Amino acid sequence: MISIDLNADLGEGFGRWRLTDDEQLLSVVTSANVACGFHAGDAATMRRVCALAAERGVAIGAQVSYRDLAGFGRRAMDVPPAELAAEVAYQTGALEVFARAAGARVAYVKPHGALYNRVVHDEGQAAAVVEGVLLAGAALPVLGLPGSRLLELAAKAGLPAVPEAFADRAYTARGTLVPRGEDGAVVTDPADVVERAMGIATAGTVVSHTGEPVEVRARSLCLHGDTPGAVELARRVRRRLEAAGARLESFA
Amino acid sequence: MISIDLNADLGEGFGRWRLTDDEQLLSVVTSANVACGFHAGDAATMRRVCALAAERGVAIGAQVSYRDLAGFGRRAMDVPPAELAAEVAYQTGALEVFARAAGARVAYVKPHGALYNRVVHDEGQAAAVVEGVLLAGAALPVLGLPGSRLLELAAKAGLPAVPEAFADRAYTARGTLVPRGEDGAVVTDPADVVERAMGIATAGTVVSHTGEPVEVRARSLCLHGDTPGAVELARRVRRRLEAAGARLESFA
Amino acid sequence: MISIDLNADLGEGFGRWRLTDDEQLLSVVTSANVACGFHAGDAATMRRVCALAAERGVAIGAQVSYRDLAGFGRRAMDVPPAELAAEVAYQTGALEVFARAAGARVAYVKPHGALYNRVVHDEGQAAAVVEGVLLAGAALPVLGLPGSRLLELAAKAGLPAVPEAFADRAYTARGTLVPRGEDGAVVTDPADVVERAMGIATAGTVVSHTGEPVEVRARSLCLHGDTPGAVELARRVRRRLEAAGARLESFA
Amino acid sequence: MISIDLNADLGEGFGRWRLTDDEQLLSVVTSANVACGFHAGDAATMRRVCALAAERGVAIGAQVSYRDLAGFGRRAMDVPPAELAAEVAYQTGALEVFARAAGARVAYVKPHGALYNRVVHDEGQAAAVVEGVLLAGAALPVLGLPGSRLLELAAKAGLPAVPEAFADRAYTARGTLVPRGEDGAVVTDPADVVERAMGIATAGTVVSHTGEPVEVRARSLCLHGDTPGAVELARRVRRRLEAAGARLESFA
Repeated sequence: MISIDLNADLGEGFGRWRLTDDEQLLSVVTSANVACGFHAGDAATMRRVCALAAERGVAIGAQVSYRDLAGFGRRAMDVPPAELAAEVAYQTGALEVFARAAGARVAYVKPHGALYNRVVHDEGQAAAVVEGVLLAGAALPVLGLPGSRLLELAAKAGLPAVPEAFADRAYTARGTLVPRGEDGAVVTDPADVVERAMGIATAGTVVSHTGEPVEVRARSLCLHGDTPGAVELARRVRRRLEAAGARLESFA
Repeated sequence: MISIDLNADLGEGFGRWRLTDDEQLLSVVTSANVACGFHAGDAATMRRVCALAAERGVAIGAQVSYRDLAGFGRRAMDVPPAELAAEVAYQTGALEVFARAAGARVAYVKPHGALYNRVVHDEGQAAAVVEGVLLAGAALPVLGLPGSRLLELAAKAGLPAVPEAFADRAYTARGTLVPRGEDGAVVTDPADVVERAMGIATAGTVVSHTGEPVEVRARSLCLHGDTPGAVELARRVRRRLEAAGARLESFA
Repeated sequence: MISIDLNADLGEGFGRWRLTDDEQLLSVVTSANVACGFHAGDAATMRRVCALAAERGVAIGAQVSYRDLAGFGRRAMDVPPAELAAEVAYQTGALEVFARAAGARVAYVKPHGALYNRVVHDEGQAAAVVEGVLLAGAALPVLGLPGSRLLELAAKAGLPAVPEAFADRAYTARGTLVPRGEDGAVVTDPADVVERAMGIATAGTVVSHTGEPVEVRARSLCLHGDTPGAVELARRVRRRLEAAGARLESFA
Repeated sequence: MISIDLNADLGEGFGRWRLTDDEQLLSVVTSANVACGFHAGDAATMRRVCALAAERGVAIGAQVSYRDLAGFGRRAMDVPPAELAAEVAYQTGALEVFARAAGARVAYVKPHGALYNRVVHDEGQAAAVVEGVLLAGAALPVLGLPGSRLLELAAKAGLPAVPEAFADRAYTARGTLVPRGEDGAVVTDPADVVERAMGIATAGTVVSHTGEPVEVRARSLCLHGDTPGAVELARRVRRRLEAAGARLESFA
């Protein structure tokens, strides 16, 4: 029987501002990437999201980021590794308090935005993220892109390295993501997204943007929660997977 | 035999800026109030101070504050209690990571600056701080002003309430601090400070600014670390207490 | 012929977050209170809003605030007057660049949120805001609550003091606002809001929450832009006033 | 007769923290690069520094930076050009208020830290800085590294492009700076620094780190103010240049 995790970014408001429909998404996903205050997320929101997630049995992950509220963590930054490691640990520790208060625990770490992209190739920053996770204590799983330096170094350090895939992103014939900005990089047709999710979850394959079937190994599917219609699309993906007999559950 | 704790604020730089001589102070105090990023303190500094403190057997406390880097946490803010509680927990959790990584743990919580002053009288904010400490998990001691609402509510909630005194502040005949800004509110003569520290630690008394002996119950003496000569003065206090046979040790 | 100004808060997003429908509101109001980066607003948004406002002949005002992104400027803060004055000037100067680049200029200053409320009664902070406006250079009009210390001190300093009224807030028989939190403090029925706007604009009166007619002198009506239906309601107010022959124009 | 400008970074504290000895430096330099709040600098400090500078006839420059207080603007950031341009204008406008209030004006713009280094080669960010300066209004001179994309694009846009040199940095035989981190990149011997300043100011040459004389064209010498002994060294440079008959004056 197939088992797959659905993860999405949550708690990405800040103070007066809201972005993600946390309540609705928590009824769909099995893993919540909770913003920890560096690109989004404030303490009260973190507390609320952790309480809801714990109540619904959704795994809580620390969505760690560069310190950049103004840029929503989407701007690459040359943060020295020692600082970056400490910042990853800081964010994870802050979230841990709310997870524990809700009777749960932080179950994994996932980098956000520009940091997510950077640690695909950047050895120094990938190592810093791993160091930060190790600092945070328990041997937390790290969620990221298959083939990334991050997952490679996490595995070397003895941390569970969890690869994820994107049902709404085009893949090249080599199995890498078509860079945003290129034509057709994002799959927008809902029916397409649902079928691609199925392919990835059940067969481990997806059709590349040049038409070839390509293998995509993933233990988790990343759903996006900050676009119009995102929640409804996430629900459709979930229903389709359930109808096919897949077990939706956290990898943690 | 008399036992007394010496506490001081540490790690109060931010990024490029430094304020406290952490290394030197950690050779004098028995408790380090570590800034947690809201009024001062960054992740790398928190990590470094925790490592040093653990190495020297100095107790690590979370110095929690309003979110106000620009004002160094010295400006009273009407933060809604639910937000304040979450922010106290957030800061404590972030510090806990570094304490644990150093083989120690967060041993107590102490509010900083304007929050410290506010929770002397403000029921709502004092309750919020206590709620934040409870959220953070273990039944952490709370360090504060004797007679404050904070210590009262902490005790009611089952948390150890630890009163502290100031050897460099004048006291009224009723045992409260002479407000800063009033004449003679701060004791500047080093010899005076040393003798007052002795009086508080050994006899539980100090001479008020109007000349009467007044009882000052304290389990900890707060030393200031951000003024010129602060480290040397702290050393003198420590030597004098040790010469008198006092045991300098954390209350935790 | 009656002349009235319609003002609303604009540009109150920050980075990735949006709050106000700036484009739509700029087709209704005659004065735009542009957030200047301290409670909301980033440089790119300020530039865009100023360009649109200038294009449509809407007056540009500096909506100055406490430095508090996390609290959206809604938390009272004890900012020392000298700092507050400098911060008001800083925000106004930053906005001036974008107003000028759009071929316009900053036409007035209006405090936001907790600062708006504080300067109703707080002499020191009201004086600091006035000092900040004077620092900013030209003798800019100050928009605020009738009877506030702010308008009083602005007038004394030779600045045009512009009183505003709220069509969606209940008034006491003495002409002051019923405090938020009290029953009926906010008028939610759109038809009511429209009629109250008419009464204030054309007759200078409104019915108090206890049923008496009360005089409300205002040169500007404040419309809220951050609630669902806000834009449509603003449009209705505008149409009603225009139908009654009122001239909608900035006070500046 | 030789004329040269001496510039230094000033006002680089933030709130409680101080870094530069503004008062002393303002008695030595002819141009003050004033931090504008993005990497350092707060409104009250900006006001104070502008007042002092104006009083002493020192030219006021906007030291613009990436938005990064935690990193002191020293971490390269991939800020989209439109945002960067707006941020440069924002900072310049904010400073202009205080310059004008002091009876002066912002006389030039100089990028700080990582932005300074980035615009040496990065076409997009260099163009964004120039766009920001143009947005800020008057045709302000831009101070930067000779041969940088920034100065090239500034000149193309009709802005005075002012090259500066560093008396305490080693130069390669090609006239570029030896990168920090390489052996001997920083000249630490005070007598050396003074002689190099003389060479640059009077002959337009300096001895490269490989021993050849190399031409260094500069209209301004950058002095560092945040190291121990910096003020005294700056004074020595100034005295030596004056003794040689050089006229120390702003380029603006």
